[in-house]
Amino acid sequence: MKIINTKDYNSLHEVKQFLMRPHLDEVEVSPGAAARTKAIFGEVLTPEQSVERILKDVKLEGNTGLLRYIERIDGVVLEEQDLLVGPLEMEAAMSKVSSEFLQSLNKAVENVRAFHERQRENSWFTADENGVILGQRVIPMDRVGIYVPGGNAPLISTVVMSAIPARTAGVREIWMATPLRDGVIDPHLLAAAHVCGVTGIVKAGGAHAVGALAFGTATVPSVDKIVGPGNLFVTLAKKMVYGRVGIESLAGPSEVLVLADETASPKYIAADMLSQAEHDWEAASCLITTSQRVAEETAVELQRQLAQLATKEIAEVSLERWGLLVVAQSMDEAVELTNIFAAEHLELLVADPWKIMGRIRHAGAIFMGSLSSEPLGDYIAGPNHILPTNGTARFSSPLTTNDFVKKSSVLWFTEEGLAESGPHAVNLARLEGLDAHARAVQMRLDDLK
Amino acid sequence: MKIINTKDYNSLHEVKQFLMRPHLDEVEVSPGAAARTKAIFGEVLTPEQSVERILKDVKLEGNTGLLRYIERIDGVVLEEQDLLVGPLEMEAAMSKVSSEFLQSLNKAVENVRAFHERQRENSWFTADENGVILGQRVIPMDRVGIYVPGGNAPLISTVVMSAIPARTAGVREIWMATPLRDGVIDPHLLAAAHVCGVTGIVKAGGAHAVGALAFGTATVPSVDKIVGPGNLFVTLAKKMVYGRVGIESLAGPSEVLVLADETASPKYIAADMLSQAEHDWEAASCLITTSQRVAEETAVELQRQLAQLATKEIAEVSLERWGLLVVAQSMDEAVELTNIFAAEHLELLVADPWKIMGRIRHAGAIFMGSLSSEPLGDYIAGPNHILPTNGTARFSSPLTTNDFVKKSSVLWFTEEGLAESGPHAVNLARLEGLDAHARAVQMRLDDLK
Repeated sequence: MKIINTKDYNSLHEVKQFLMRPHLDEVEVSPGAAARTKAIFGEVLTPEQSVERILKDVKLEGNTGLLRYIERIDGVVLEEQDLLVGPLEMEAAMSKVSSEFLQSLNKAVENVRAFHERQRENSWFTADENGVILGQRVIPMDRVGIYVPGGNAPLISTVVMSAIPARTAGVREIWMATPLRDGVIDPHLLAAAHVCGVTGIVKAGGAHAVGALAFGTATVPSVDKIVGPGNLFVTLAKKMVYGRVGIESLAGPSEVLVLADETASPKYIAADMLSQAEHDWEAASCLITTSQRVAEETAVELQRQLAQLATKEIAEVSLERWGLLVVAQSMDEAVELTNIFAAEHLELLVADPWKIMGRIRHAGAIFMGSLSSEPLGDYIAGPNHILPTNGTARFSSPLTTNDFVKKSSVLWFTEEGLAESGPHAVNLARLEGLDAHARAVQMRLDDLK
Repeated sequence: MKIINTKDYNSLHEVKQFLMRPHLDEVEVSPGAAARTKAIFGEVLTPEQSVERILKDVKLEGNTGLLRYIERIDGVVLEEQDLLVGPLEMEAAMSKVSSEFLQSLNKAVENVRAFHERQRENSWFTADENGVILGQRVIPMDRVGIYVPGGNAPLISTVVMSAIPARTAGVREIWMATPLRDGVIDPHLLAAAHVCGVTGIVKAGGAHAVGALAFGTATVPSVDKIVGPGNLFVTLAKKMVYGRVGIESLAGPSEVLVLADETASPKYIAADMLSQAEHDWEAASCLITTSQRVAEETAVELQRQLAQLATKEIAEVSLERWGLLVVAQSMDEAVELTNIFAAEHLELLVADPWKIMGRIRHAGAIFMGSLSSEPLGDYIAGPNHILPTNGTARFSSPLTTNDFVKKSSVLWFTEEGLAESGPHAVNLARLEGLDAHARAVQMRLDDLK
C-alpha cells in the first residue's frame, strides 16, 4: 500500500495515476489466462479474440455453441433441456432458505423498490397556442437480461439491484444468466430471483451467456438490454454486442474513496476500505485525508483488522496493489482530488458531510458521515449498487429505473402550427441541400391556401 | 423498390428481413473502401483495423497524429495553430449569413430549447421515519464533444440538436468537431455553433476527430461524452472509445416508416418517403398500409416526384435498395409489423392517429397525422432529431437533456436507521461471504450500544 503526500507532486493530476486502472483496450493478459485460452480454443488468443469467437459461435450455432462453452468454460456438462432452471428446482430452493434470510431479502427488495419507484418518469405532453402537441412517451422495454457473476459466493444483492429496477420500470420479461457452481445454483440466488420476479434463469456465465441473451437461441430468447457486472470477458462481450442490444455500462473493478478530516475514525475508515479490498485483487481502496495522523492510524488499523478477516488473502493482495493513503494540504485540495478521481463509492467521513456534498461533481454514490458505511448501500439502503467505476462517474450514473425504459417523441401539428413553423423548416432544408425535405413541407403549406 | 403483401409470408417476422440493416459487425467492405485504406495506410485494412490504427496514433501522437489524418482523410493540410476555429473566422461567418437564415435558426433553437427544458430532471431527496436521507443528485457533465459530419451540405440542424440539449443540461464546455469542406467550414454551420453556445470547434472529421475528443491532444481537450451522427468509421470509433467516454448511441442510416390507412394521401406519403431517401444510399423508406390502392398510388407518386428532385440521384438508389411498400391485411397487423420494425421515424398517416399512438411500443419519434411531416421534426418542431435507428428503438431513446447529466446517489444514515437496517446488511453480507462488509456494519452497530 502506498502512502503519499500531495506536497510531493507538482499537480493533483499526477496523483491520479495511482488509481487509474487500465481501460479495456489496455488490459494485459496474464500467462495463466493465455494458457487457458489455449486449453479452450486450441490456440493462444487475446481476450478480444476469445470473446469474438465465443459470440460468433453462439450466434451461428445457438444452443450447441452455448452448451459447448458451458462445458469448456463453466466446466459443467448440460443437456439442452436443462439449460433453464425449472419450477421444481425453484421450489426446492425456496424450501431450503431460512426465514431470517427471506426477511432480510424482503427488506432489501422493499427499500430498493421504494427508491427506484421515485425514479420513474412520466410521459408528458405540451400544447402551444397554435394547438401543436409535442410530447415524450416513456415505454418500458419488452425483455431484458441480467447477468449475475458466479464468484465465490451467491451474489444475492446483484439480483435485487438489477431485477427490481427492471420490474419497477414495467419490463415484461426479465431473463437472468448465472453460471453453475459445483453443479448447482445457490438456493439463495434462486430465491432472490423468485422474489424479484425474474421470468427465466439460464444456467450459463461468461461471454457465452451474454451471447445467448443478445442473439437468442432455441431456448434462450433474445433480450433488448443486458445489465450487470462481470469479469473482463463478460465486459468485452457486452461491449461487442452493444448496438444490437443496450447495455448499462462497462464496469471495471470496484473502488471506494474515503474523504476524511481529522474527526474521522481510523477504525471505520479501515473497515470500509477493507470491505472494498475483499471483493477481488483488482478492487481499489483509497483514503484522502487532511490529517497526517488519521492517515498513519488508518495504516495501522488496516493491518490490525486485516489479520482478523476471513477474506484476508484477497484483501491483502488488493490493498498491496490498489490501496492508497493520500495526505492533502487542505480540504479544498482534498475535494479537488476527489473530483479528479470520480470514484464509484465515495465516503465523506468529515465533521459536516453536507457542507462538502454539494462540492462533489463526480461520484457514483456518496455516503455521508460515519454511520453511512458503504456496505449499507451494497445491500439494504435502497439506491443501486451497480455504479460507474474507473472515473466513468464523470459521464455515467448508477443503474436506475430509467435504464429499463426508452422514450418516443410525439409530434402533432395543426394548420396554424404548420403555417408558423413550416417556412422555417423549408429555409433550413434548402440550406442543407435537402430538396425533398423542403418539398414535403412546402407541399403541405401550399395545400393550406 | 419492393412491393409486398403480408399474405405471401408465413409470419410478420419474415417481413422484417426487408428492413434490417447489417449490424456494425456485419458490414461488408466495398472494393472502393478497401482501395482507400491501401492509399491511406499502405495496406488493405478492414474498417475496424483502420479505426483502431487511427485511434492508437491520435492517442500516442496527439496533434501530430491528428494533423496527419486530417491531411490523409479529410484531404487538407493544416498547421497546429489552425486546428481550432478562431474568433476572426467566427466573426466573418456571422457577417456572411442572411438575417432570414438567422431568424429560422433562432426559431429552431427556441423550439428545441423549450422542448429540452421540459426534460430537465431535478435532484431529489427522501427522508424516512428514522431520519435516514436518501437522494439522487443530477449533475451536468463538465465537457462534451459533438460530432457534425461533413456531408454534401452544412448540417446546421445537427449542431442545434446536439448542442442545445447539452446547454440546457448545464454542460460547461461544448466542443464541436467537423471536417473542412473545400478548405472551409460553411458559415451557416459556424453561425449555428455560435448561436448554440459551442465553446470551441475542431477542424477535423472522421475517426481521428473522435480520437482527439476522447483522448485529448495539446490543442483539443478530452471530453466526457461524444454525441452525434457519422459514417461507419465515426461510429466504429465511438464504439471503441466507449467506456473511456460516454456516447449516446451507435447510429446507422436514417429510416422512415409510414403507417397509412385508406384515408392517407399518396402524394404526402411519397414526399415523406423521398425526404428520407435523399439522405444517402443507405437510407430506408417504408410504407405499411392496409390499402392496396394507397400502395399502388404511392408507387406512382414516388416516380413522379422523384423526377423533379434535385437530389434524385441519391434518392433513386436508396429507394431501389431500401424502399419498401407493404400491404397489410388489417390495421392490427400493420401495427404489429410497425412494432417489429421499431423505426427511427414513424408517421401515422391514418384517420385518427391518436387511436393508434398508444399501441406503438417501439419508435424513435412518432409523427401524427397528415400535417406532421417528418422534416418538421428534423428542423423546427422541438423534439430531437438524433434518434435510435435499425431497430434500436426497442431499447434506446431520442437524444435528450438527460444524456448530458449524470447522477450520484446520496445516503445519510442516522443511528435509528442504522439500528433497523444494519442487521439485514450483516445477514446478506455473511451469505455472500463478504466478511469485511459484515464487520464494517457490525462495528457501527456495536458502537451504538
